[in-house]
Amino acid sequence: MKPYIETNKRRFFEELFSLLRIPSISAKPEHKPDMYRCAERLTELLKEAGADEAGVFETAGNPVVFGKKTVDPSAKTVLVYGHYDVQPPEPLEKWRTDPFEPVLSKDPQTGEDAIYCRGANDDKGQLFMHLKAFEYLLREGKLKHNVKFIFEGEEEIGSPSLPAWVEANKDLLKADVILVSDTTMISEKVPSINCGMRGMAYLEVTVTGPNKDLHSGHYGGAVANPINTLCDMISSLIDKDGRITVPGFYDDVVELSKEDRANLARAPFDMEEYKAFLDIKEVKGEKGYTTLERTGIRPCLDVCGIWGGYTGVGSKTVLPSTAHAKISMRLVPNQTADKITELFERHIRAIAPPYVKVEVQRSKGGNGFLIPITSHAYQAASKAMAEVYGIEPVPSRGGGSIAILADMQRILGIDPLLMGFGLERDTIHSPNESYLLRQLFAGMESIALFYQYY
Amino acid sequence: MKPYIETNKRRFFEELFSLLRIPSISAKPEHKPDMYRCAERLTELLKEAGADEAGVFETAGNPVVFGKKTVDPSAKTVLVYGHYDVQPPEPLEKWRTDPFEPVLSKDPQTGEDAIYCRGANDDKGQLFMHLKAFEYLLREGKLKHNVKFIFEGEEEIGSPSLPAWVEANKDLLKADVILVSDTTMISEKVPSINCGMRGMAYLEVTVTGPNKDLHSGHYGGAVANPINTLCDMISSLIDKDGRITVPGFYDDVVELSKEDRANLARAPFDMEEYKAFLDIKEVKGEKGYTTLERTGIRPCLDVCGIWGGYTGVGSKTVLPSTAHAKISMRLVPNQTADKITELFERHIRAIAPPYVKVEVQRSKGGNGFLIPITSHAYQAASKAMAEVYGIEPVPSRGGGSIAILADMQRILGIDPLLMGFGLERDTIHSPNESYLLRQLFAGMESIALFYQYY
Repeated sequence: MKPYIETNKRRFFEELFSLLRIPSISAKPEHKPDMYRCAERLTELLKEAGADEAGVFETAGNPVVFGKKTVDPSAKTVLVYGHYDVQPPEPLEKWRTDPFEPVLSKDPQTGEDAIYCRGANDDKGQLFMHLKAFEYLLREGKLKHNVKFIFEGEEEIGSPSLPAWVEANKDLLKADVILVSDTTMISEKVPSINCGMRGMAYLEVTVTGPNKDLHSGHYGGAVANPINTLCDMISSLIDKDGRITVPGFYDDVVELSKEDRANLARAPFDMEEYKAFLDIKEVKGEKGYTTLERTGIRPCLDVCGIWGGYTGVGSKTVLPSTAHAKISMRLVPNQTADKITELFERHIRAIAPPYVKVEVQRSKGGNGFLIPITSHAYQAASKAMAEVYGIEPVPSRGGGSIAILADMQRILGIDPLLMGFGLERDTIHSPNESYLLRQLFAGMESIALFYQYY
Repeated sequence: MKPYIETNKRRFFEELFSLLRIPSISAKPEHKPDMYRCAERLTELLKEAGADEAGVFETAGNPVVFGKKTVDPSAKTVLVYGHYDVQPPEPLEKWRTDPFEPVLSKDPQTGEDAIYCRGANDDKGQLFMHLKAFEYLLREGKLKHNVKFIFEGEEEIGSPSLPAWVEANKDLLKADVILVSDTTMISEKVPSINCGMRGMAYLEVTVTGPNKDLHSGHYGGAVANPINTLCDMISSLIDKDGRITVPGFYDDVVELSKEDRANLARAPFDMEEYKAFLDIKEVKGEKGYTTLERTGIRPCLDVCGIWGGYTGVGSKTVLPSTAHAKISMRLVPNQTADKITELFERHIRAIAPPYVKVEVQRSKGGNGFLIPITSHAYQAASKAMAEVYGIEPVPSRGGGSIAILADMQRILGIDPLLMGFGLERDTIHSPNESYLLRQLFAGMESIALFYQYY
């Protein structure tokens, strides 16, 4: 596919940039019109790439884009999944360029060419590889499979509306494999294929002390401060061994066998490099597990956001009425988001001291899942990537979550296959998200070859 | 003074409102021009009230207003202290009216007339009483004392520039008593005079984990989250008995005698009313002390603000790079802000785990102080207030801090006298700050009578 990429590169950039410029932030309701704009633009790109049919479908939330190309009704069907929504760009002050104006420039550290923009990798950049691999195969007369595309606009908020839409459109979505590029590989030197992802539960906790903000001099020391109380509660959620204290939290966690752990340990990992990349002196996590295991096969709890009281410039004193935290738990296969959400809410209410009130707002969660590496699809992907990278990819476990894939696996009865081409350097979800051109193109080639070997 | 108030009421409102409309927020550097506007307006009001001289004086920070009236060089001199700066109005969404547009309206709960505005009580409303009591005495030919006025613009940020200015202007400020209305009385039925205030130390703590915001799926469980770590650190600062764990924190705290405690316990206190006013089920504080003691004679630690990660709408996942907290400690007499600031910073650095970095930003603090209730000034104030309220005031200990008063006491060798007419209902430092008209006028009368008995 290399020559095709070379010839069409400029057009590829124009097309991808037109998607990246749309601030399709699903977490912010005011961006609703952008979700539609983005869905419409994707539909155009699908048609231009050669889809027989493509359209925007309403759901209870943001629209779904669906398109398809039927080559041979008796051939296998690949269902490509991607999402066109992106994470909020905040904190804005840490971006070197406009988060929604794509820029082609050199990585300041390595000098490599990359596209800088929110969504450059996650997932507009990665889903775009599928459009172009498809276009290439079709135009060159090499497409032997039927292809379906489903692009959703709620992945970053846990895909609340998609399961119902998938359920209602089972026939439309019939396929043999769900092909997804929305994950990261270990490194360019160590290409990897995700064979499992974590699920997630997410809740917002509000602690209310007094019914109004108070003068911290008049009341300080006599009335519980909800920020201090929230800190106490959060602090108690993880014990000194790094284990989560929510009762029942680990009940459904499957302990991996020695062999499975040894197999995962094949993925190379350089602790010094890891710490240097993050500029930390020490890692921290659950006792008895390695860093890769802590993100790959063990659940965790993180405060994703906290706020309360006066957060402006200067030294305002206040004993505030409320304090808030957004708390996520990454789950491993066999734990369910519903159960963990329930357990967490019960626990956080149980540990709330009598001098505060607690409110909990649940977000849609998702379950983790595993993919058998013995499958034909996995083997085809492995072969394709080995050819492009010159190295056989290792199986890995991704720490992230794509809530909808476990649902689709369950509803449609099809296994997903995660051919992800992101790298840690891309800093998705963070300021200055970017995607290396080399990976964008290697991804297209790998995907095109996957169709050849599948 | 009642008839004088009745005749001039309308003009009083106009004058006070002209001060209240100026958003003189000392914590926000962008309000610098407002500080000058407010100082100029105060100077005009001083001159109109009858001061011989009044002017705006530069300091290293916001300007000081100084004015004086010499009646008889051999008579005693009263130095009136007040501050024209105010707290930031945030959170704005909790105000029922514009925080800087004074409104005369009824208290929604009690139906009493009050002025609603930031600064209505603290301290523009309270300092205004002194201007008008002075004007009244002068115009009616009743002023027997020399009067000096010092109004500063940095009280709410700990008066960083005033000590140097006071030191440099010792002669100008020579007086027999520092008269201050910037505190709260127990209730209208229980008028009280503050005989001591707490000091304050204030620091901002920043905890940094990884050098960039991270994807909480890829790193969660393996890299310490600075929000969780900050919560752990904060949680460890107060033990289960409500005592602050900073080593050396209590070293200089003077334990009060049984008699002193019994004397303070004379102030009436209704726990059920207190809890109902705040809508809390239980109070919380240091073991072994009553609620009034916890705010009056014991130090405390409060988080005044906390922030980190994603705090917008929705469920963004992130393992953030940094987390921040603003922490205040109210101190009792004999503790010094400098020493406690030093101890706190040392401690917070000592308890920081190796997987984070900690930065500490110190704010200007202030010491607590005591006022002898046996003094002539205290007795004159007591007599004046007893006459106006029909009840003899009780001595009380205020939990708040006026950093500069301990400095002025030390530099000038004069004791302050705290005739405060605020009520808890005024919710100073909070949204919908207000000041009851009854207290505004009773304050003016009490102050005028103070001059008579002093």
